[in-house]
Amino acid sequence: MKDVLIIGAGPAGLSAGVYCARKMLDTLLISGDIGGQAMLSWEIENYLGYQLISGVELVERFRDHLENFKVELKESCKVTSLVRTEESFTATTNKGDEFSGRAVIVASGKVPIRLGIPGEDKYRGRGVAYCATCDGPLFRDKEVAVIGGGNAGLGATLQLAQFARGVNLITEEQYLRGDEVRQNRVLALEAVDVFYSSRVTAINGNTFVESIDLMHDNEKRTLPAQGVFVEIGSKPSTSFLPVQVELNDGGEIIIDANNETNTPGLFAAGDVTNVSEKQIIIAAGEGAKASLSAYNWLLKQEYLRR
Amino acid sequence: MKDVLIIGAGPAGLSAGVYCARKMLDTLLISGDIGGQAMLSWEIENYLGYQLISGVELVERFRDHLENFKVELKESCKVTSLVRTEESFTATTNKGDEFSGRAVIVASGKVPIRLGIPGEDKYRGRGVAYCATCDGPLFRDKEVAVIGGGNAGLGATLQLAQFARGVNLITEEQYLRGDEVRQNRVLALEAVDVFYSSRVTAINGNTFVESIDLMHDNEKRTLPAQGVFVEIGSKPSTSFLPVQVELNDGGEIIIDANNETNTPGLFAAGDVTNVSEKQIIIAAGEGAKASLSAYNWLLKQEYLRR
Repeated sequence: MKDVLIIGAGPAGLSAGVYCARKMLDTLLISGDIGGQAMLSWEIENYLGYQLISGVELVERFRDHLENFKVELKESCKVTSLVRTEESFTATTNKGDEFSGRAVIVASGKVPIRLGIPGEDKYRGRGVAYCATCDGPLFRDKEVAVIGGGNAGLGATLQLAQFARGVNLITEEQYLRGDEVRQNRVLALEAVDVFYSSRVTAINGNTFVESIDLMHDNEKRTLPAQGVFVEIGSKPSTSFLPVQVELNDGGEIIIDANNETNTPGLFAAGDVTNVSEKQIIIAAGEGAKASLSAYNWLLKQEYLRR
Repeated sequence: MKDVLIIGAGPAGLSAGVYCARKMLDTLLISGDIGGQAMLSWEIENYLGYQLISGVELVERFRDHLENFKVELKESCKVTSLVRTEESFTATTNKGDEFSGRAVIVASGKVPIRLGIPGEDKYRGRGVAYCATCDGPLFRDKEVAVIGGGNAGLGATLQLAQFARGVNLITEEQYLRGDEVRQNRVLALEAVDVFYSSRVTAINGNTFVESIDLMHDNEKRTLPAQGVFVEIGSKPSTSFLPVQVELNDGGEIIIDANNETNTPGLFAAGDVTNVSEKQIIIAAGEGAKASLSAYNWLLKQEYLRR
């Protein structure tokens, strides 16, 4: 029986791990990967203390930091169910392993939202991608489309513009969202065309993607594209949670300012929660808060010996 | 007229500055110092991404980070009043300067709580100190007392044990608080004696401090001490705020999960708020959140041109 199970090892889960270790809690961190969505960030310049660093490098620092402490890590597995028993929680993984803990910190993050249009599934891995950092270099000197006008879409566009012959950035809105700095950089690039108020309706091809269909002012248009990067956001990973855990309309776990949920002993942090801004530094802070709240709760329940 | 005034340049204010800069907001950061309470931390091992760093060094990284962006900085001054006018806020400093902004982020942190006992004021700077990092080295081979059994008191004790002949750690509680890791390190030190359930009632001396009086089980005891480090916590710096800003019983600004206060356009972050854990990584995350909330508010009020 562990003191704390942490589910997810993005910035929130890793920061929670560091804080649990510092409180000498017997902790198990369960995750499919290390770094979560932070791994997909190409240039990070807003994590206080690092002026400019890639997601991959920053996650490496995080991992080194955690390895400095004695936190048990169960990698490459996914929690498929979490059950509340009388005095603890039991997590079951996709490999059939079971782990129990007095308290749980859910930091399972988000997964990319799919377009749900014809061709998306068929061409996944054959031109359709969800991570410009991972797959961008495959599209050197090709025509690519980026779908989504927020920070993720802008970042993907900037990155792809380094490789691709041309980038068509498509947004359903009349303007770009995301940081002004990024907007300006995108708009200054000759290789980039922005399509406002446009909806992608289909992805076409043979063996690989060849084009996409757009609707703009009730007019259909077809653009050539060998790569299609879907950057329209992500949804919280909460399917394993006990039904009593309260979620908001967006499916995010509702927490208070101290990361408590409506379920005693169950805390949450990072992108999976209703904290509206999804940022690495925010997730790291929230993970720390969740650990300290879990620690205080364990003390109050007298699960920890003094 | 600035878009945003940030009051305070601890981790919360600095992170807020970085985020405002990334949103290209016209921002002024007003502060007496850079780094705030983080400067007083001697060994930091829980800021995700840095395994072990001193407060002074970490703050240097923060300052470098901010200087990378164009954020105007007004150092070495203190906001003495903040007034809400119809469409903006005006901050007045102790030097008589006035600055106006559409939105304000209050990140003014906390100041140390005083014991309020005889001798404390008289011997301030003559043996009574509030920062072991700053003043510890002055007490080489002396007898010192640390008052307070939380993380601050434990940190001061560990630090002073490197210099002092002996350290008496005094707490009113029956046990130590603070991280278990630190507790164990303190308890393992031969040079340290811990006095539980003990209250300091007076600080005595001639030109400099010579001893302190303790009450334990209704018995008075006098301990020799050339240095007295007061580490019993701190209180929020809010005296300059307009009266309508809602505070909790501890005098902290009440914020919601998105760092809004009860006053439109006024946001808050870090140790000055009701977020219960006072940690550098948490303050950095909260500062980022406050900036993004301020940005969204400015957009909604149509104060920013697209």
